[in-house]
Amino acid sequence: MCRNCDHTIHRAQHHFGWDNSIPPALRVEPGQSVHFECVDSSAGQLGPSSTVADVAALDFARINPVTGPVWVEGAKPGDALKITIDGFTPQVAEGSAWGWTANIPGFGLLADQFTDPALTIWKYDAANPQMSLFGREGKVPLKPFAGTIGCAMAEDGPHSIVPPRRVGGNLDIRDLAAGTVLYLPVEVEGALFSVGDTHAAQGDGEICGTAIESPMDVSLRFDLVKDARLKTPRFTTPGPVSRHLDAKGYEVTTGLAPDLMQASRDAVAGMVDLLCAQRGMAPVDAYMLMSTCGDLRISEIVDMPNWVVSFYFPRIVFE
Amino acid sequence: MCRNCDHTIHRAQHHFGWDNSIPPALRVEPGQSVHFECVDSSAGQLGPSSTVADVAALDFARINPVTGPVWVEGAKPGDALKITIDGFTPQVAEGSAWGWTANIPGFGLLADQFTDPALTIWKYDAANPQMSLFGREGKVPLKPFAGTIGCAMAEDGPHSIVPPRRVGGNLDIRDLAAGTVLYLPVEVEGALFSVGDTHAAQGDGEICGTAIESPMDVSLRFDLVKDARLKTPRFTTPGPVSRHLDAKGYEVTTGLAPDLMQASRDAVAGMVDLLCAQRGMAPVDAYMLMSTCGDLRISEIVDMPNWVVSFYFPRIVFE
Repeated sequence: MCRNCDHTIHRAQHHFGWDNSIPPALRVEPGQSVHFECVDSSAGQLGPSSTVADVAALDFARINPVTGPVWVEGAKPGDALKITIDGFTPQVAEGSAWGWTANIPGFGLLADQFTDPALTIWKYDAANPQMSLFGREGKVPLKPFAGTIGCAMAEDGPHSIVPPRRVGGNLDIRDLAAGTVLYLPVEVEGALFSVGDTHAAQGDGEICGTAIESPMDVSLRFDLVKDARLKTPRFTTPGPVSRHLDAKGYEVTTGLAPDLMQASRDAVAGMVDLLCAQRGMAPVDAYMLMSTCGDLRISEIVDMPNWVVSFYFPRIVFE
Repeated sequence: MCRNCDHTIHRAQHHFGWDNSIPPALRVEPGQSVHFECVDSSAGQLGPSSTVADVAALDFARINPVTGPVWVEGAKPGDALKITIDGFTPQVAEGSAWGWTANIPGFGLLADQFTDPALTIWKYDAANPQMSLFGREGKVPLKPFAGTIGCAMAEDGPHSIVPPRRVGGNLDIRDLAAGTVLYLPVEVEGALFSVGDTHAAQGDGEICGTAIESPMDVSLRFDLVKDARLKTPRFTTPGPVSRHLDAKGYEVTTGLAPDLMQASRDAVAGMVDLLCAQRGMAPVDAYMLMSTCGDLRISEIVDMPNWVVSFYFPRIVFE
C-alpha cells in the first residue's frame, strides 16, 4: 500500500496482451496518483526456488502481465498522457526481494548461439535495492524500473504484449526509473494505461531478452497534455542515468558493419568472448550478466557504409 | 611539442586515405610514446573565419587527413596494437582554440531532410577545453578525442578514409579520449598506425556527420599484444564516460521500428522537433548541436519485431 497515493490496484487486476475492450480496473482524474501491485514477467511461473527446468516449461500464453487498465478522465486521442514515476517497492518472497534472469530458447539477440535454457536467481535487500550478487564475485548495481508501460492501441482486438508500439508497452528502457517523467501518445478515450514487467536492473539493449525480472509495486502520477500530437514516447530524466554503474569505467567491444543489427551482434559476441577469456565465465553466464548491466550504444551512424555499435560493460561489476 | 614523448610527427606528415604502401613517417619500439600534430578533418580548408560558402566549396579529395604512418617494431599480422591515449592539446588559430560543425549535403543520418550546407564555428579556451558556447544560450561540454585512429589494411591499394574497418580508422567513438586504452587488430607488418580527425566534442552517433572538428595535437604510447587474434577494436575507459554531460539529466526521444536505422532516424527527428518547439531553434541548428552532445542508445533489441532506439540530449546544454 502506498501511503500517499489516491488509489491502489491490486495484483489480481492484471491482463495479458493489449486490448481496448478490457474494462478499466480504475478511473482517475488528472493529477491523481496510483499504487500498482505488479506481477513479475513470468506471472508467478518462476519463483526464488525455481530451476532451469521451470524455464523450459514456461507457458508463453501467460507472460508479461500488466496491471490495469486505468481510465484517465478527459484523455482523448491526440493527447499525451504524462506519467511521473514516483518510485518502486520490491515485493518480498521467501524472506527476500528477488529476481530472475533467463536465457529462453528462441528469444534474445544471440538466440542462434544460445539455444539451451538457463536461469540465474538474484536476491537483494528490499529495503535498500542497491546491489545484487552474481555468482561468487560479480556485483550488479540495481536501478528499478518498469519494462512495460503503455496505453491501449486504437486498433481493436487483442495484441501481443511483446512488441513495444508508439503508445508504449514493452519499451524496456532502463531509465524509466524513479523521478523520470514519461509522455505517451493517447490513441483511445481514457488512455487505458497499464504497467508491469518490473526490473531490478537492465542494460541498454536487454540483450539476452530478460533483465533482472523482479516483482515490485509501482507508484505513478497521471496528468494530461491536451492535443500534444506526440508521435512516439519521450521522457525527461531528473539527473544522471548511469552513475550507479560508471564509477570504475568500462570494458568496451565493438561491431562494425553496414547493418546496425549485425554490428550489435558482433559487439555483444565480442564481449561474451572477452568476459569468458578474462574471467573464465561460461558463455551463457556472461550473456545473462551482460543483459542486466551492459549498454549497447551507437558510436557512429554516418561513416558509410560501416556503422559502429559498441557494447559497454561496467567494470564496477568485478572491481 | 610534447616534453615527455620519445618522438614527434609534424603536421606536414599526413596522408589521405589508407594504403599499406605509404612509407612510414616514423619507426618506434614498443613502449615508446609519440606526439602527433594533427590537421583538422577539412585539412585546413575551413578556419575560424570560414562561412557556409566554404562548406559548399569543400574538396572531398582532401578530407580527413591522418598523421603517420608509424611503424611499430615487431608488430605482425594477428597481433594487437595497444594504444594508450595520453592526451590532447588544442591548436590555436586567430588567438583561440576553435572548431567547426557542418551540415554537408549528402552526408549525415538525416541527409534527405537537411539538404543545404550549414556551418557553426566554435571557440574555446585552449588551456582549459571544458566548454564552448552554441549561439546565445547553449553551452556544450567538451571532451577531446581522436575520430580517426587506425592501422593499415592488409588489402593492397588505396582505400577511402570514410568507413571504419576492423583495423580501426574513422571509428568516431567519443570515448577514445584521454586515459582510454585502445586495442586494434594488426593486419600488416609494422602495423602502420595513423591518427587524426580530432574532435573537441561529439555525441554517440555523430548524427549530422560532423562533430566539433578541431585541430589538436595528440600524445599516444604504443605497445604490442602478441598473437592477440582480436576480431574488432576494443577499449578500456579509465572511469566514467558521461559525467561532463549528465549532471542535469536528459531529454529523451524514441524511435520504434523493426529496423534499427529507421528507429534511429525517428528518434533523432523527434529530438529535432522537440528542440525546435521548446527553444525556437532552426531545425538545422538543432541537428548540428545534437551531433556534438547527444547520444544514440539502443534501449531494447529483443522485443520482436520492434526495436527501441533512444536519443539522449543532455539538459546541461541549456540549464
